[in-house]
Amino acid sequence: MTRVPTSMRASVLQKIEDIAVEQRPVPEPGPHEVLVRVSAVGTCGSDTHYYERGRIGDFVVREPLILGHEASGTIVALGSEVRDHEVGSRVSLEPGVPCLSCHECRSGRYNLCPDVRFFATPPIDGAFCEYVTLHEQFVYPVPDELSDEAAAMIEPLSVAVWACRKARISPGARVLVTGAGPVGLLAAQTARVFGATEVVITDVTDHRLRTAAELGVTETVNVRHRPLPEVDYEADVLLECSGNPTAATEAVRSVGRAGRVVFVGLGGDELLLPLSHVQTREIEVTGTFRYANTWPTAIALAASGAVELDSLVTHRFELERVPEALTAAARDDTVVKPVVYPQR
Amino acid sequence: MTRVPTSMRASVLQKIEDIAVEQRPVPEPGPHEVLVRVSAVGTCGSDTHYYERGRIGDFVVREPLILGHEASGTIVALGSEVRDHEVGSRVSLEPGVPCLSCHECRSGRYNLCPDVRFFATPPIDGAFCEYVTLHEQFVYPVPDELSDEAAAMIEPLSVAVWACRKARISPGARVLVTGAGPVGLLAAQTARVFGATEVVITDVTDHRLRTAAELGVTETVNVRHRPLPEVDYEADVLLECSGNPTAATEAVRSVGRAGRVVFVGLGGDELLLPLSHVQTREIEVTGTFRYANTWPTAIALAASGAVELDSLVTHRFELERVPEALTAAARDDTVVKPVVYPQR
Amino acid sequence: MTRVPTSMRASVLQKIEDIAVEQRPVPEPGPHEVLVRVSAVGTCGSDTHYYERGRIGDFVVREPLILGHEASGTIVALGSEVRDHEVGSRVSLEPGVPCLSCHECRSGRYNLCPDVRFFATPPIDGAFCEYVTLHEQFVYPVPDELSDEAAAMIEPLSVAVWACRKARISPGARVLVTGAGPVGLLAAQTARVFGATEVVITDVTDHRLRTAAELGVTETVNVRHRPLPEVDYEADVLLECSGNPTAATEAVRSVGRAGRVVFVGLGGDELLLPLSHVQTREIEVTGTFRYANTWPTAIALAASGAVELDSLVTHRFELERVPEALTAAARDDTVVKPVVYPQR
Amino acid sequence: MTRVPTSMRASVLQKIEDIAVEQRPVPEPGPHEVLVRVSAVGTCGSDTHYYERGRIGDFVVREPLILGHEASGTIVALGSEVRDHEVGSRVSLEPGVPCLSCHECRSGRYNLCPDVRFFATPPIDGAFCEYVTLHEQFVYPVPDELSDEAAAMIEPLSVAVWACRKARISPGARVLVTGAGPVGLLAAQTARVFGATEVVITDVTDHRLRTAAELGVTETVNVRHRPLPEVDYEADVLLECSGNPTAATEAVRSVGRAGRVVFVGLGGDELLLPLSHVQTREIEVTGTFRYANTWPTAIALAASGAVELDSLVTHRFELERVPEALTAAARDDTVVKPVVYPQR
Repeated sequence: MTRVPTSMRASVLQKIEDIAVEQRPVPEPGPHEVLVRVSAVGTCGSDTHYYERGRIGDFVVREPLILGHEASGTIVALGSEVRDHEVGSRVSLEPGVPCLSCHECRSGRYNLCPDVRFFATPPIDGAFCEYVTLHEQFVYPVPDELSDEAAAMIEPLSVAVWACRKARISPGARVLVTGAGPVGLLAAQTARVFGATEVVITDVTDHRLRTAAELGVTETVNVRHRPLPEVDYEADVLLECSGNPTAATEAVRSVGRAGRVVFVGLGGDELLLPLSHVQTREIEVTGTFRYANTWPTAIALAASGAVELDSLVTHRFELERVPEALTAAARDDTVVKPVVYPQR
Repeated sequence: MTRVPTSMRASVLQKIEDIAVEQRPVPEPGPHEVLVRVSAVGTCGSDTHYYERGRIGDFVVREPLILGHEASGTIVALGSEVRDHEVGSRVSLEPGVPCLSCHECRSGRYNLCPDVRFFATPPIDGAFCEYVTLHEQFVYPVPDELSDEAAAMIEPLSVAVWACRKARISPGARVLVTGAGPVGLLAAQTARVFGATEVVITDVTDHRLRTAAELGVTETVNVRHRPLPEVDYEADVLLECSGNPTAATEAVRSVGRAGRVVFVGLGGDELLLPLSHVQTREIEVTGTFRYANTWPTAIALAASGAVELDSLVTHRFELERVPEALTAAARDDTVVKPVVYPQR
Repeated sequence: MTRVPTSMRASVLQKIEDIAVEQRPVPEPGPHEVLVRVSAVGTCGSDTHYYERGRIGDFVVREPLILGHEASGTIVALGSEVRDHEVGSRVSLEPGVPCLSCHECRSGRYNLCPDVRFFATPPIDGAFCEYVTLHEQFVYPVPDELSDEAAAMIEPLSVAVWACRKARISPGARVLVTGAGPVGLLAAQTARVFGATEVVITDVTDHRLRTAAELGVTETVNVRHRPLPEVDYEADVLLECSGNPTAATEAVRSVGRAGRVVFVGLGGDELLLPLSHVQTREIEVTGTFRYANTWPTAIALAASGAVELDSLVTHRFELERVPEALTAAARDDTVVKPVVYPQR
Repeated sequence: MTRVPTSMRASVLQKIEDIAVEQRPVPEPGPHEVLVRVSAVGTCGSDTHYYERGRIGDFVVREPLILGHEASGTIVALGSEVRDHEVGSRVSLEPGVPCLSCHECRSGRYNLCPDVRFFATPPIDGAFCEYVTLHEQFVYPVPDELSDEAAAMIEPLSVAVWACRKARISPGARVLVTGAGPVGLLAAQTARVFGATEVVITDVTDHRLRTAAELGVTETVNVRHRPLPEVDYEADVLLECSGNPTAATEAVRSVGRAGRVVFVGLGGDELLLPLSHVQTREIEVTGTFRYANTWPTAIALAASGAVELDSLVTHRFELERVPEALTAAARDDTVVKPVVYPQR
């Protein structure tokens, strides 16, 4: 059907702050894999982190690495055993394939699988390239209503869906979201879908807060001008998306009795927890690590229009300009989500 | 039936480190209360704290206060509306009576009621006295198998039952208990009753660890000689009962994927949480504040012999010697639980 | 402030099919009660049942009884201990006041309290009258956005919220609602608020199904013309609101693996359960009995516009016409919810 | 290490009531499989059902089939990719290997996988033979404390563990078990391990009830002489293990408010559910289908002595006598669990 070339362009991180487009062989799908021509790939803070520092915690870039893990595309070839997909399908990609048989996988927590192979996490290559292969069960057809960008944004939306599940948000909940970056904006929207009737979002940038207001939060707070203790808000749920340890500690004090705190953004190795606040209110505190079983839900929410994804994509780049895409947010307040188009 | 006098002896905290036995009127039960002649009252760290410092957090002793909240006794009179109790019943007392109608109470979390009236918490008097009144629904008959001391120990056992519930301990669980004081010893025993097949307990005192070993834990660790990181144990659940912030931070690092951490002992206002450990494993962290709906379970466990209470009572005092009872543990390593007998 | 008369009109069920308006003394609020001037009262199938048969199960009308339990009104007087309400407040009434101190109440399941006093359930009078008293904690102020009718409809909305909670509906769920009467229509709307992306509703009346379509369900099925097995729909959740035993049995067979079934409508004493279907899919089956802790959520959902209540009120009656109100639905397919206005 | 022959003896069901021992090739393990020399295999009602009727529901014996799925053995060879096992290990076998990648598997409910390959379920062969292969992750080493028989009994114990989990049995629970066959006896013991303080078991055979009494239930009831309504017991949990529809309906009426009912034994296609009893008490009703993630827990419970398995094995047979083993229970009241030894 589609002619697939034998070689492709790929944006490869050679070493810190050194990315170049190279020719690479197009990978061949294994028996239970499909080959996907990549349409759009969002950039994420973790990509930028590898680009600028060459590591995240114990994961160190020792060999050249292709970044990018928020991807959509079109199936162009099927592995020998694949029965439930067809060539030509537009798909969203779940970028981590776990072992499926360890204790965590079999318990429904495959995001905690110690042997997961995750796009753009050393030594596994990601999606800033023309073609990728992926396990058939981690590739999801999307309806026509979803643009290529939106299909790529299913990944960060999954982060938000997972966070809202962990927080057990239910109709009537009062939710505080700290940080109005891409994850915070999606968390706030998703909290509404889970039935939250109040969603307060904080940030230090008015531009981001305006975006949040357009997406339906009920209150925005610029904590540079109005610190959280002054706001005196009591939340049932805190979704911490700022990754700022000081802000996080303070925000926990805004959570009321039997509330839940979910650390979504990574915030360093340690955090000062207001323990007596937590104990006397029996607040539950946890963090999220990626997601599990979120793609069908996230696609359904995006397709129904309950969550708006396209407007998050503020800047667009061809494959040659990945370094610019990775550093755009730091240079420009109006950047929400830069997207890379490997076919351009 | 029983002749009730009009006045009684009560051990009253006048100010810091000043307790004296006084004559007080015997209280009269309200329509839904019973009058109980107190048999035995355990001493607790919070009693000692009020005695030595005059406050716990925002609770300040401004008026003379009767301490003691781990109590058993015998019903000697019934309020006018009480139908389900009888004079002569031996009972265990749940020392906190909530408002019963606020949002927390109606949600089954009456331990979080902002208007709870709790024994020995200013300005509510406790049980270091000959007679107390209590709401009929917070007074529980105990079977003959339970001694007066054991009936009083239902209160700290309730702390342990609540902690094990919050930790969702289930059969096969591997549990780490930090701190082998009265709460830790009860938590360890209760974890076994919840089906834990491994219970490791830590302390810095060999004597306490020997007691733990006799009560059925599967491993004891003196962290003074063998720090937790050397033990290299991975737990499903941590019950933090030491109240030591440094020990607590370290112990959280012993919890594995999808594990739960419950802070049972009070450990100061703030705690350094190993956030990346918690996030990458999606560990749930919470704390307990007293208990709710535990008495029937705790009594059933004690009556069936599943939990051993009597051996925790190591030292006995008459009402005049409350100050000695409150300071016994600090003076003597072999003290687990001192008990006061108001009728002696 | 408001002058309260000493006597009032009340619609009293004397015996089967015999209702008359009588003069009754206006009740006086107890210390923790408020006096409410009733604005609007929905009629419910249970009211009609008492009117036509004089009993529901073990509850038998032996003395004259005031029916009606879906009520709104305005506070006109406060009991001596009431601090958190004020005269003039427009309120929605939760019609069942439990004992608050039994095991069920203290466990957060006050709807299962054996000593609940529930409006219009013998021997407790209901709200088809000008004034009622109620415990202050079961009276909820409503915002101006809610009409008197909507404030009364918070009661059946609570039935729906409770059913969706019991069914653990979460974003992305596929929900089948059987029966498009008032409860089914509210259940379908509420399922959407809980994040259901598919809501299929069945009935035997096209008129009702058209109403459902206007309220946002994704598919309607007239099972008279197209039986459920032909539809071949697999649901995650079944909300059984038809009360028809045959329909219910059949509908359970539409539920897929790990699905949930909630019997909301009362459907007789016994039901044929397709056991092997339930066992091989590990479906959870339960029923709802009234509700607990739903008013704040239901009011928030109605006030935010997430659930539409006013359009359910299709027919209006003054107090003298209660018998007509109770029998309207049986006479006329277009009746959804008849409402009685005691002040007219 | 161990010499493995190329052919083996296998007990093969040819057609209804026709089983013969045949020579079959010893299977070769795939890359992620191990080869196990079978030590002991329990017989189960489902084996007998296939033997006597040639089918269970939609599963029909069309080709010769090896029965038996409760098995233990010793690893004698490893597939090429197996790293975590060693030859010589004594193991218990989990007899169903799911696809691991479908929605159910990835959600932690692999027992509901539509593509599971389960021992002795047409067309998959079972373990009444000398050697079997199995996926490495479904083979569990057992400690020396467990006999070969006990290692085989981990399978029915898993049924009981799963049922107790589904029933959410927790310390203090009152549990009714209907049916004192092998599953009922294990369910009753396991309920104790989950903390149940009362376990009442019913049967129509005094011999079985005596066995139950020896295993620690708190009350036995012969419902032939003393029907359940006369017992007037209120349970928190019903574990239905009799498979008798009439008994099951009646037993549901013994469950109290907010109780749980789990159908463990298969009881035909339909069951008369006492719906109004279920609704007014908000009882949750479900059934179990095999188990998921139970082996580690079941082995730990058996190894710790918390559950007694050996005494359930009442009768022993060599491979040639499988037909006798399958029909023993019907002929003799004293049979609890017949076991087949393929190496004899």
